[in-house]
Amino acid sequence: MNLTAEILAVGTEILLGNIANTDAQDVSNALSELGINVYYHTVVGDNPQRVREAVDIAKKRADIIITTGGLGPTYDDLTKQTLAECFGKELYFDEYSAQRIRDLFAKRLHGAKMTENNLQQAYLPVGCTVFENSCGTAPGCAFEAEGKHVLMLPGPPSECRAMIKTGLLPYLKKLSGLEIRSHNIRIFGMGESSVEDKLRDLMTGLENPTLAPYAKEGEVLLRVTAKAANDDEADAMMQPVIEKVKETIGDFIYGIDVDSLEETVSNILRERSLTMAAAESLTGGLVAKRMTDIAGASQVFIGGAVTYSNSAKAGILGVSEETLEKYGAVSEQSAIEMAKGAKEKFGADIAVSLTGVAGPDSDDRGNPVGLVYIGLACGDDVLCRKVFCGSPRSRCRTMAANYALDTIRRYLLKIPMEDKFM
Amino acid sequence: MNLTAEILAVGTEILLGNIANTDAQDVSNALSELGINVYYHTVVGDNPQRVREAVDIAKKRADIIITTGGLGPTYDDLTKQTLAECFGKELYFDEYSAQRIRDLFAKRLHGAKMTENNLQQAYLPVGCTVFENSCGTAPGCAFEAEGKHVLMLPGPPSECRAMIKTGLLPYLKKLSGLEIRSHNIRIFGMGESSVEDKLRDLMTGLENPTLAPYAKEGEVLLRVTAKAANDDEADAMMQPVIEKVKETIGDFIYGIDVDSLEETVSNILRERSLTMAAAESLTGGLVAKRMTDIAGASQVFIGGAVTYSNSAKAGILGVSEETLEKYGAVSEQSAIEMAKGAKEKFGADIAVSLTGVAGPDSDDRGNPVGLVYIGLACGDDVLCRKVFCGSPRSRCRTMAANYALDTIRRYLLKIPMEDKFM
Repeated sequence: MNLTAEILAVGTEILLGNIANTDAQDVSNALSELGINVYYHTVVGDNPQRVREAVDIAKKRADIIITTGGLGPTYDDLTKQTLAECFGKELYFDEYSAQRIRDLFAKRLHGAKMTENNLQQAYLPVGCTVFENSCGTAPGCAFEAEGKHVLMLPGPPSECRAMIKTGLLPYLKKLSGLEIRSHNIRIFGMGESSVEDKLRDLMTGLENPTLAPYAKEGEVLLRVTAKAANDDEADAMMQPVIEKVKETIGDFIYGIDVDSLEETVSNILRERSLTMAAAESLTGGLVAKRMTDIAGASQVFIGGAVTYSNSAKAGILGVSEETLEKYGAVSEQSAIEMAKGAKEKFGADIAVSLTGVAGPDSDDRGNPVGLVYIGLACGDDVLCRKVFCGSPRSRCRTMAANYALDTIRRYLLKIPMEDKFM
Repeated sequence: MNLTAEILAVGTEILLGNIANTDAQDVSNALSELGINVYYHTVVGDNPQRVREAVDIAKKRADIIITTGGLGPTYDDLTKQTLAECFGKELYFDEYSAQRIRDLFAKRLHGAKMTENNLQQAYLPVGCTVFENSCGTAPGCAFEAEGKHVLMLPGPPSECRAMIKTGLLPYLKKLSGLEIRSHNIRIFGMGESSVEDKLRDLMTGLENPTLAPYAKEGEVLLRVTAKAANDDEADAMMQPVIEKVKETIGDFIYGIDVDSLEETVSNILRERSLTMAAAESLTGGLVAKRMTDIAGASQVFIGGAVTYSNSAKAGILGVSEETLEKYGAVSEQSAIEMAKGAKEKFGADIAVSLTGVAGPDSDDRGNPVGLVYIGLACGDDVLCRKVFCGSPRSRCRTMAANYALDTIRRYLLKIPMEDKFM
């Protein structure tokens, strides 16, 4: 069964350029895991007439219509009413959803007064499957009508992303006769075109399972997907492909079915009962932020210092004034002293440091934008890795944090630091 | 003249969820500046039949069709051919564009061999206006046919963004008689539905200027937009609306035409020549990261400590063991000692601290998920604000950082800390 889907985002804020349509990206990613073809994304404003017209078009060209946005409590949140109308459905007041909304205000929003319009969100199309919203007030839903499946998801990206997992995926998996499984192979330090070059023959020769690359910010994700009668069979089909990828890409693979470099680093530290600290200059806390994105981070991450100024590098981390003067803050010497200082001050087993030039301008010693030194201290070991993280500022900082985490991974796993400058 | 536009992105990579459609966001932003209404975004894959169908639909509902993507040298780059066909145009070989492509390979791509397919990019619709590509090889173009304006821009975001400025804006400004201006009013501490409740009458009564709310993560953005013969007239029309909003929302407005709370805090600190430090527990560096997102942050932000463990709170910031034992890390007392410690250790004029429970679980003293203490120390002043930041973890951390920045703003501007728990 080859189903096709159209994603219909409802939201004037997207048409005004206020936000990018990341919900469509998240939904597309989920559908590609399921092997459902997405032929169109459409964005339409909070205007019932234009939403109706867009739905009429989508009906003609897709089996599944997935809407995002317009489920909230305000007067321009019209998705449910409009879609119900388009498919000749009535809305009913879902007491269970209403109670969830009341409870959310009572328990989790600590005293925020619930205005009555919030209960509008509990009106849902008759006969629908309700998708609970684990991160917000507006429930989503799905129904079948006129031979089409209609799914409605909330607009706020965190709510949409959560409901894709808890609502959309289970619902759509039932439509497909087969189980679909996928594994995500995560790669850092090798660019997308190099990965593709190395794997082109393998990729083009595959039908089931499939292998597809996705460029992430400064990383590459390879997704292996198999359709089979059950999970075990799917896994067995994918195993040889994964092995082949491992052979080809080697140590640039930092994890399979992990979410991020920080998750991989956390896992390694936890397995070895090691603790970590970070000393950050140009990244301004991004490494610490990413390490503590992970629940339970306190087991492995003791803390970090953001030493943006030289005085903080000296005062907080004990980098010597002489080093700062002679070599500058952006230098191998400073990076190593920062890492040693962080290890000692925080009493951590391993510390990483980052110092470099995020831009937009080169520094007063003429160091170019994108130049970053990553220091590492562990026991009596120290090392420094010099990398180029490019521009603009935000990409430079992300890449620097990636390199810092990758440096810990490589050090602990005794993998040589082969620097492919990206 | 009220022109409407549709943005048609051509690219299978968007439908696969590989990238978000940020080109459409950039084009939309430019069109909203021009007062051209964008009623639809459409994304279609690199498939000539589906592109044709999408163009047929766009012709019926827009005066201006702007395509992004599909102008490159590979076999699936079919936008120009397909659009030319749809409007009965021939392509010609544009020698000037061809020479630019040859020159670019010779000069800027340092020895990369130019394969012949690169010259495909020099085929353009007869009679078009050519848009030079300042960042890449593929030229864009614009033509008028069947009463519609068709503009084609390249897909890579940096190329698209540059061509919006150098090609699209000048071309479309000629079409439009009116200027359009907008101002963004940024609000923290009051939820979207409360803002709407308070402003509903004002909003629904307006036609030009308009006033529209947008929920950001934990914030609300109100955009006022006016169309007029010139900028001054537009500003004059918006002024009374802005005043009315200020009267109604008051101190919850943290800035007009600023990008973020951190920008507002940076501006206040810079104006007063004050320096800042941060002591973060649950936010793990997010406040420092956000303060240093701003280029030139080093003028106001000295540094920060991420003290995730109690030992780091004591060792790095000098929080007393007694306080940590008696009141716990998540307490008013610890928050204040953290802020005082950060102020002293970093030698900053003002320091903010955050300690709380990000979840997923409550802490070992039974403090609930979402409870956060924000401490502040400045000169001899200390204060603590107790706030609830909700869940999930990522939202709790974002909200806690928002509250910390808002606390600095309110303290320095002598605005009472009215806590509306969101």
